Amino acid sequence: MSKDTYQHLLDLRQYMRSKNVDAVIIPGTDPHQSEYVSDYWKYREYLTGFTGDNGTAVVTLDKAGLWTDSRYFLQAEEQLRDSGFVMYKERTPGEPNIREWLAAELHDDAIVAIDGRLFTLIEANQLENFCGQNGFMLATDFYPADEIWPDRPAMPADPAYVYPVEYDGEDVDSKIDRVMQAVKAAGADGMLVTALDEIAWLFNLRGSDVAYTPVVVAFAYITLHDRVLFIDEHKVTREVKDHLKHHNVKIKDYDEVEKYLSKVTERFTIALDAHRVSDTLGQALMCGKTYIASPIIDLKAVKNEVEIAGYHEAMKVDGAALVRAFKWIEENAGNGITEIDVDRKIQEERGKCDLYRGDSFHTIAGYKEHGAIVHYEASEQSAATLAPDGLLLIDTGGQYLNGTTDITRTISLGNVTAQQRHDYTLVLKGHLALARAVFPRDTTGNQLDILAHGPLWQEGLNYGHGTGHGVGHFLGCHEGPFQIRMNYIPAALRPGEVTSDEPGLYKTGEYGIRIENLLLVVPAMSNEEYGDFYKFEVLTLMPYDTRLIDKEMLSPEEVKQVNDYHAWVRDTLSPLLEPAEQEWLAAKTEKI
Amino acid sequence: MSKDTYQHLLDLRQYMRSKNVDAVIIPGTDPHQSEYVSDYWKYREYLTGFTGDNGTAVVTLDKAGLWTDSRYFLQAEEQLRDSGFVMYKERTPGEPNIREWLAAELHDDAIVAIDGRLFTLIEANQLENFCGQNGFMLATDFYPADEIWPDRPAMPADPAYVYPVEYDGEDVDSKIDRVMQAVKAAGADGMLVTALDEIAWLFNLRGSDVAYTPVVVAFAYITLHDRVLFIDEHKVTREVKDHLKHHNVKIKDYDEVEKYLSKVTERFTIALDAHRVSDTLGQALMCGKTYIASPIIDLKAVKNEVEIAGYHEAMKVDGAALVRAFKWIEENAGNGITEIDVDRKIQEERGKCDLYRGDSFHTIAGYKEHGAIVHYEASEQSAATLAPDGLLLIDTGGQYLNGTTDITRTISLGNVTAQQRHDYTLVLKGHLALARAVFPRDTTGNQLDILAHGPLWQEGLNYGHGTGHGVGHFLGCHEGPFQIRMNYIPAALRPGEVTSDEPGLYKTGEYGIRIENLLLVVPAMSNEEYGDFYKFEVLTLMPYDTRLIDKEMLSPEEVKQVNDYHAWVRDTLSPLLEPAEQEWLAAKTEKI
Repeated sequence: MSKDTYQHLLDLRQYMRSKNVDAVIIPGTDPHQSEYVSDYWKYREYLTGFTGDNGTAVVTLDKAGLWTDSRYFLQAEEQLRDSGFVMYKERTPGEPNIREWLAAELHDDAIVAIDGRLFTLIEANQLENFCGQNGFMLATDFYPADEIWPDRPAMPADPAYVYPVEYDGEDVDSKIDRVMQAVKAAGADGMLVTALDEIAWLFNLRGSDVAYTPVVVAFAYITLHDRVLFIDEHKVTREVKDHLKHHNVKIKDYDEVEKYLSKVTERFTIALDAHRVSDTLGQALMCGKTYIASPIIDLKAVKNEVEIAGYHEAMKVDGAALVRAFKWIEENAGNGITEIDVDRKIQEERGKCDLYRGDSFHTIAGYKEHGAIVHYEASEQSAATLAPDGLLLIDTGGQYLNGTTDITRTISLGNVTAQQRHDYTLVLKGHLALARAVFPRDTTGNQLDILAHGPLWQEGLNYGHGTGHGVGHFLGCHEGPFQIRMNYIPAALRPGEVTSDEPGLYKTGEYGIRIENLLLVVPAMSNEEYGDFYKFEVLTLMPYDTRLIDKEMLSPEEVKQVNDYHAWVRDTLSPLLEPAEQEWLAAKTEKI
Repeated sequence: MSKDTYQHLLDLRQYMRSKNVDAVIIPGTDPHQSEYVSDYWKYREYLTGFTGDNGTAVVTLDKAGLWTDSRYFLQAEEQLRDSGFVMYKERTPGEPNIREWLAAELHDDAIVAIDGRLFTLIEANQLENFCGQNGFMLATDFYPADEIWPDRPAMPADPAYVYPVEYDGEDVDSKIDRVMQAVKAAGADGMLVTALDEIAWLFNLRGSDVAYTPVVVAFAYITLHDRVLFIDEHKVTREVKDHLKHHNVKIKDYDEVEKYLSKVTERFTIALDAHRVSDTLGQALMCGKTYIASPIIDLKAVKNEVEIAGYHEAMKVDGAALVRAFKWIEENAGNGITEIDVDRKIQEERGKCDLYRGDSFHTIAGYKEHGAIVHYEASEQSAATLAPDGLLLIDTGGQYLNGTTDITRTISLGNVTAQQRHDYTLVLKGHLALARAVFPRDTTGNQLDILAHGPLWQEGLNYGHGTGHGVGHFLGCHEGPFQIRMNYIPAALRPGEVTSDEPGLYKTGEYGIRIENLLLVVPAMSNEEYGDFYKFEVLTLMPYDTRLIDKEMLSPEEVKQVNDYHAWVRDTLSPLLEPAEQEWLAAKTEKI
């Protein structure tokens, strides 16, 4: 591949010269700022050979760099060999960031070019300021992927489908009404929606245009009188057409959005989320604009009763699938199975449920030292063969029509050491403490975070990733608005929101430990003097590995918490299992 | 008094008419934004009769209001009777705030007037915007206190004194050098310093111009080549003059500051903290200005080794004084002593130490239901007589030449109930959890707060005040930059900083519980993989009330923490005590 990609770099430079461009910045995203993008938008991968989720390529006429984060240092180094690209480490002392690098490389009056569809209004604005301060010019209409990518994959053309109210619990009219209330409160006449999960939620539509998240590629524009969905006509089945018509949604072609927006009457004020809407679409609007956080983020995050009931059902079938898969893994470690087989087996077991629609992210199955690589993804070359020894970390999730799951379990395949038990129990203590928290209204994630981090900190240990992220309902496995983490995100946790609870500990070269459940925020109590308090209800159904628990390190309260959870898991999952599986589960959930 | 103050209101209105002013806003602060102000600046008190720390008077030609917070609702209601002022409750649903009230009361083109010396640049700017939006004009040169206050108290004229390096640990040149480094880094040539505790710290000067904080009224202006202190000449003793001369500090009269600043060369850029510098002084500068958080806040907060050693000594004598006072209180409850006698006795015992310079705030001695009033201050009328029954909350602090103390203890005078023990133990659990926390570099106060609030939240209980505030070294008892509280303050806790640890619980009409120690942030451990961790070292020496502890509610770790603390308190204080006091302390610190 590297030889190919080097030619792609030469092609790009020739194209840059033809357009008088001195530098180009190429991110790995799409016009919807998606976490996962369709192949059509993988020009950065085509150009550099680097396949990681996070990476930005920057090319001048004589140099080329790719910036990525610590998860991908090893992978990028390997994939970029002979590509003409040098890897630069993000947020690493001594390494220039993209702006510093450009400031040093470019001459006065240099032209920096981007594809404005791939940058948010905020990002483009910051870049514009940077260019202004350094005497460069920013061009936002540079589209190499459209011009010099001969075998570009087609736009995804899979059909969209209607997401039934029986799973969603709220119809399109009600949702649009609620969004428009917030839009009107912001003094606007309408709103432009570009994030794919927001569009899927708002119109009760789903699709399979990108990996792991069941969304459909589209843009939306809503006002009090107008509802327009910009979508490729091939995706619009008869069912989808009827559904949209029923809710007075007009259908326009995906490519018409820019032109349509440019004709919105100047008398209108349109609300935009400048952290989500692309520079190209934002600039296309010639009317009044008001910048707000998309109200859909807040509305979508609070799950209704139908969605919550669906979660509970999805957790049962996911738990049962995992019991079967984990039993198989334990029984076959030593028989030649690899980390990739773990992934395959879990998908196979999930596939026995009719409502399963694929995984919610790529399963991480990290055996021994691979477990210490936080975002490890096994390849055919790297995949370790499991032996009846050491720790296996499995982080996996499923998309079911009635809910999205995300779980991590770390299990022993044999020869547990005292150190492993000590470390596992520290992580478990934090995981349990967060799960049993009670907290007042308006509590933000970084107020809760120490509950999960605390037991590790007491021993000078830590993990660098977040403790909890929001989870969508048959939508993105990672969503906002809140996050539970060390840094401050000004969004409180509200009843109906779903968060992960996933502390970890990583011993480089040895093993990784992470324990993750999904939790639902529910009311705890309420009184006149002190107001409303919330707590968590555990959604995930799957035992911890009791062989890894050092009971001496647990308080009586923690022991009870584990035993109660295990009793609930056993009682809930057993009816879905065969006798041998029930027996396995009973052993796993014995009282500690 | 009310009859007098009503005349003061009429005088003010007459003066307003003579100046064509439609409304005036009169805060309770001074030109240094001090927490405690000298009598010279108590015009709001003269005008309204209200003596509380927090209150802002607003007067139009036909109405007058006083805004204060919940601590002072009862007091204000009483003191404002017949004054012509109506009390308005701050942050209370249904009550207008000052701006809403003004917007409703005033006509277009109304003139709103303030004394610009009593408003920060930020506050005046916000007021200016408010006036602009409502069609009012803002005048910042309205000085009723200077013109229509016949018997205005004199400016404090007590002498300043040099704060010896033996207590401070760093000389003036070194401090100014460090401040100027930050000023230069901000691209400025000099800085204007107006906060009294910053000036006291920077020039190693102290005084007795305001209550509770040993500061001297002055302004300061420093550049690379110039050091000017604006101070009343009566305060400048020979010793102070020599000290300032030695450090090349010029002395100018306090009243000259505005004129002096107006002549700073236009070529200079002067750094100002817009949250601290008054509008009047900020506007006086005709040179370039750059707005920064005062670097002195950060520098002053981190105590050096000499200051820390001083704290330890101050805590010993304060602890010994409190042992004597608490023993006396216990022995005399029932003999007719009141809450005011508690305050008096503590001051008397503290006074036996040569280094004692008065209290660091007004002692709160709240017996039974008075303990539930968070900022209760006993008056001759309100002071309860103590009986051998119920809870007594004592929050008190001393200013010693070698350190500032702040402690709260809640003690039983008799007939402990199960509910009291339960509540006390909940508060104690939070207090202990915060004290034993270990946390990484860059941790902010709201990440730690749940450790103190958590045990109460688990039962749907809460307290509304902060959990921890910074404490100065023989300076203000409340200082920044960090705070430990539910809301986010973006300043991390750093080694050398001192914080209070003071969770509480208040049962209106019954009793209040608060437990407070001062803690020093110290390094805990450090490793290459996870970085630096910090922990707390307890500074305060005084037993908890073990009769109020429900041991069943404590973990073995918590029991050990209490017993270890008590052993340390006993061993450290006993050498300073008489045999009978030692015996009392031994009983109080018996193992639980």
